[in-house]
Parts: sequence; structure tokens; C-alpha cells
Amino acid sequence: MNTTRDIKAWFGKNSILGIATFLATLLYATVLSAAGPDEELMNKAKSLFGPLPASMPSPDNPITPEKVKLGKVLFWEPRISVDGTVSCVKCHPLGLYAVDGLRKAMGNHCKENPRNDPTIFNAAAQISEHWIGNRTSVEDQAKQALVGPPSYGMPNYESVEKILKGMTGYVTMFKQAFPGENNPVTVDNFAKAVGAFERTLMTPSAFDDFMKGNATALTDQQKRGLKSFVSAGCATCHFSPYLGGQMYQKFGLFEPYEKYTKSQQVDEGRFVVTKSPSDKYVFKVPILRNVAETPPYFHDGSVDKLEDAVIIMDKIQLGADLTKEKSGEIVAFLKSLTGTIPEAMLTVPILPSAD
Amino acid sequence: MNTTRDIKAWFGKNSILGIATFLATLLYATVLSAAGPDEELMNKAKSLFGPLPASMPSPDNPITPEKVKLGKVLFWEPRISVDGTVSCVKCHPLGLYAVDGLRKAMGNHCKENPRNDPTIFNAAAQISEHWIGNRTSVEDQAKQALVGPPSYGMPNYESVEKILKGMTGYVTMFKQAFPGENNPVTVDNFAKAVGAFERTLMTPSAFDDFMKGNATALTDQQKRGLKSFVSAGCATCHFSPYLGGQMYQKFGLFEPYEKYTKSQQVDEGRFVVTKSPSDKYVFKVPILRNVAETPPYFHDGSVDKLEDAVIIMDKIQLGADLTKEKSGEIVAFLKSLTGTIPEAMLTVPILPSAD
Repeated sequence: MNTTRDIKAWFGKNSILGIATFLATLLYATVLSAAGPDEELMNKAKSLFGPLPASMPSPDNPITPEKVKLGKVLFWEPRISVDGTVSCVKCHPLGLYAVDGLRKAMGNHCKENPRNDPTIFNAAAQISEHWIGNRTSVEDQAKQALVGPPSYGMPNYESVEKILKGMTGYVTMFKQAFPGENNPVTVDNFAKAVGAFERTLMTPSAFDDFMKGNATALTDQQKRGLKSFVSAGCATCHFSPYLGGQMYQKFGLFEPYEKYTKSQQVDEGRFVVTKSPSDKYVFKVPILRNVAETPPYFHDGSVDKLEDAVIIMDKIQLGADLTKEKSGEIVAFLKSLTGTIPEAMLTVPILPSAD
Repeated sequence: MNTTRDIKAWFGKNSILGIATFLATLLYATVLSAAGPDEELMNKAKSLFGPLPASMPSPDNPITPEKVKLGKVLFWEPRISVDGTVSCVKCHPLGLYAVDGLRKAMGNHCKENPRNDPTIFNAAAQISEHWIGNRTSVEDQAKQALVGPPSYGMPNYESVEKILKGMTGYVTMFKQAFPGENNPVTVDNFAKAVGAFERTLMTPSAFDDFMKGNATALTDQQKRGLKSFVSAGCATCHFSPYLGGQMYQKFGLFEPYEKYTKSQQVDEGRFVVTKSPSDKYVFKVPILRNVAETPPYFHDGSVDKLEDAVIIMDKIQLGADLTKEKSGEIVAFLKSLTGTIPEAMLTVPILPSAD
């Protein structure tokens, strides 16, 4: 494996922000060997991560209460799928941190999706959605899912609109959410409403308290884990308040992923989208918010334990071997990213009557 | 078709209560031709139906907050099914009045269940559960579902207990719900907890206000519908506060059901359970609470519209032909059975971590 070439490819592919973060991380990794106090750790972590914002930015889809209300109902709606079983919440059940717990998500007629189900908590601020970045935003993801063969599986967008228009409850709600529009019941507005709802799905955690200056929000073990997370190089890719989602990266920089998993099939990753040879085995770096609660791991969901996922990542992405103690500390730190799910999210909307 | 024989068979099969109600209904149907005032209607309806009780009786499974709390979490838990996709809430989504909206319920690996999914709202006070009464109680239903080939599909009860015992969160909750037990994590306690939760799922409606003396709780059309419901003979079987669930009845007393539906397959009903020839085509009379919100209709879910279901019932069970006006009134009355789902029911529990 040509690591130098891979790293060159990486630099060519990623943003200025990514490169700056990479350099900052290297510098910090050096400084850290002197093991500074809490404040130093906190300041460095603030520059790499920072707390979740109070609300998710939504420049192209202004958030309104009416849109969020409609989006939440639509999120739970299975009657717009080809076999009446698929809704957003099917693969993103909120009480399981918005993942289905399966190796690969399952859509209509039990069709298996190509990859593992990513959580939609805190997901909207990523550079793109899905493992290979083939959805530009949560809105785009919601819309395309309607006609995705292994998800809702509807034959076309018109058939979805026809079903929605047949339920008076929806006609009223779309009118309220998109006032002034002559024909508000459209899949584009479906996407905007679901997207607006998803943008509210933020789960601040102990780590955010720490990022805001509360030095006791993390345990000592978690603080050591945070240090190791940075010094080992994890934050090179897993940066920002989301600890990921900001860049693409080749998976298996030092060793092939398949060496360490039950996975039989090699996934070409973002190459599927771009057809560019440099995108072979490249994936979007996943966010790590709530990672301890969203097994199984990786794009193929073939790893059950977070401990194992951390060790595999260290081997194949950083060419290193974490001690059991260090990997345990990193896992402890990652648990500080398990957020509180706001009660308002945890309510079931009553769906409109069938007519 | 030998109707006299069928009616004799019916009398042989059903309880004293059923017979008394049948006679009372006949008498009332005669009296009603004089069209009495609201009070008379209300009193008669009270004797046939009455309001939902304040709480569901639970003689064999005392309700405690801890049991209900655990039961609610288990109700949402898919990780104890053979493919990780089946939970109680999969087929009984609360925002759709606890039905899946499919013709026949769909279990693990998309296996079709033999019959349509009955709501579990207000369901626990029936003489038995499921269309053919092959589950003695909601507790029995919950337990057997775990190993039901087209539902959870687990190979045996031990495998369920093993998964539950592997999640510390469940061990704690089972201990709290069943204090003093040495080995509380059992499928029998799973059944008790889920049953206790289901017994809380009561949805009082406008009809209950009427039953409690508020004469304006029903519209005039709904009152006419209530009169017709009784005078046409519907209440002969659909009696009690649940408007059903108290007896078995042959389906197709006057004409075969299949004449009026898309159904291709004849279902032998309770005969499957008892192997008694007199139980051929016999089903448990379903409850009618929330019926307007729980399409599609009948044991095979082959009828989409409540209007059609009412007309078919009148033809095949009562040998009559409702006018469009009368069937419309009955549908209006049935809508008064659409309940308010208490907010406390409409919250999503956070499931325990995988380890």
C-alpha cells in the first residue's frame, strides 16, 4: 500500500479547513506530550471541536414552527411508501438514537440498503449526507428516499404527492407550513418540512458542557481519552462540533479494513458517486455524536463493539496500535458525546386520517 | 345458507350476557320505532354500552408504575426479534391508533401474518385476543409473539431472555418492576410488563361523554346513527364499552363475506383453534373503538372504506340493505368512538444501551 500517495491524494481532495486542522492536530499532538492542565486541554479542544451551536444553521430552508410540525408528522408517515411499511422513523427510531441497530438498513419489502444506517441526530451540518456523500443535504436525502428502490420505493414523486393530497389533514398542514403557495403539497415541500424537523434534532452532551468551560463535565478518564483522541490523530478527520462530517477520507490508509472485519465485500465508497479513481474506498468521515449508542459500526455495520471500532480505526487509518488502556480511555471520552434527547423530540405525532 | 341453523349455533356458542343483550337489542329495536328523546337513547345506550372504565381491569397482573414503565420500553424494543426489526410498536404505531395500516401485519423478514392487525388501544378487556381468539390475554399475546414465526420469530424464549439479560439497563428495570424475584428477567415478566403497559392504553372519546350524560357530546347525525346502529342490530354483537370483543360470531350469517370483497381466500376462523365444525368461519367480534382511524377493515384487511365495511356488515350479518343515509349516519356515529390518545402514551422511551 502506498501511504505517501494516499496522503497526497487526501491533501488534494480536502478543504483548506481540513488541512489547517490536520496541521493544528499534529502541532497539538507534539505539545500534548508535556501533558498540560485542564484549561490547556479545553482550549485546544475548543479550537478543534467547540460546542454544538444553539440551533442548526439552515440558510436554504428557513425553520418555522409550522414546517417543523409538518416535518415531524411526515417523518413518522409510512403510507407514502410502496408497501406501506417505510417511514423516516423506521430506520431512525428516536429512542435508539435515530439508528435501526441493523448492519444495513432495511427498506420496503425487506430490501437491504447498501450501507449502515447513519443517525440523523445532529446530522444536518455535514458537507453531505450518507456514507458516500451522494445526498447534498438532509432535504435532498429525504426527497430522494421517497423513490429510492431500497427505501420508500415509490415509482415517482407524483405518486407520493397524490397520496398526500388524498389526506385532508396533510393538505391543511402543508398550507400552514408553506403559506401563500398555490400548490403546497409537493415533494420539494415534503423535503423542506422533513429537513426542517431534522435540523431541530440536536443532542447536546457532557462534552458540550466541557466545551463551554465546565472542567468537571468530563471525568478524568474521559479527559485522558480526549487527549489520546487528539494525540493519536483521530481529530485529524473527526473535528468540528460534530466530530466528523466535514470531509471525505480514504478508509484503510495503512491497512485494508477487510482485514479486521467479517465483511466479505469491498465497498468502493465515493467512487460510486464520482467515478474518479482517487475516490476509491473514500467515505465521508462520520460524525461521532452519540457514537456509543449507535452500534453496529462502519459503513457495513460489521463491527458490534465501540472498543473494537476504535482499535480498528487506529490500525487502518493511523498505522498504530493503541494500548488497551488508551483505547478504553478513548471509548470513555466518546461516551461523553452521548447526548440528552430533548423531550420535545420524544413525542409521537398523531398522523392524519386516511381520508 | 341455513340461517336458522346458524342462529341456533350462535345461541349455543355464546354467553348468557350475549343472549340477554341480543334480546334487549331486539326489544329496543321495536321501541325505537317510536323515536324517543335524547334521554331515552342515552339510557338505552348506557345499558348496551356504557362508558370506558377509568382504568382497565387487571386481576391477574396488578398494574404498577414500574411495570408500565418497563412494559413501555419493551413495547418499543426491536433487538429481541430474529432480524432486529420487529417490536410491538412496529405493528401497533401509536400515532396511527396502534395499527399498521396494512392489509395483513408484516413480521420478521417481511413475513405476512395470517390476518389484519387489530388495534391494541382498549384491547385488554376482550374475551380473548387476535381475530380467532387464539391468545387468552394481552399478556399471552405479547409472550407468544416473541416466538411467533411471522412476528418476532425468535427460536425460543431462552434466546429472548439471553438478549435482555445482556443489557444492563433491562436488568435494572426488570428488578425494579418485579421486586423480590431472584430471576426477574424472564419472558413471563416481559409479558406482564408489556400487558400492564397495554392495559393503560385507553382512549376515551365523545361517546364516553355522551354515556356519562352529556347529551350534546354527539351531533344529531351521530345520535341518529347510534339509533340505527342499535335498531339495525349491530349492537347484538358489538356491545359493552368496547363495542365488541365480548363474544364470537359466525362471519357471513346471511351471505358469504367473499361475495363483497377482493378477498380470494376463505378463512376458516376459529375452527383453526378449536377444530370444532361449529367454529367454521367464526371470529371474535372486533371492538369498534377508534374504528374510523383503523383501516383497512375485516380480518383480511380487504376493505378500505368504513362506509363499505358498514354496508357489507349489514348485508352479510343482518341480511338487510342500509340506505345510503342510514349507513352515513352509522359511520358518523362510529366516528364518535375516535378517542383522544393521552399525551403520556405519545412519548418515545429511550431504549437501554446495547451493553
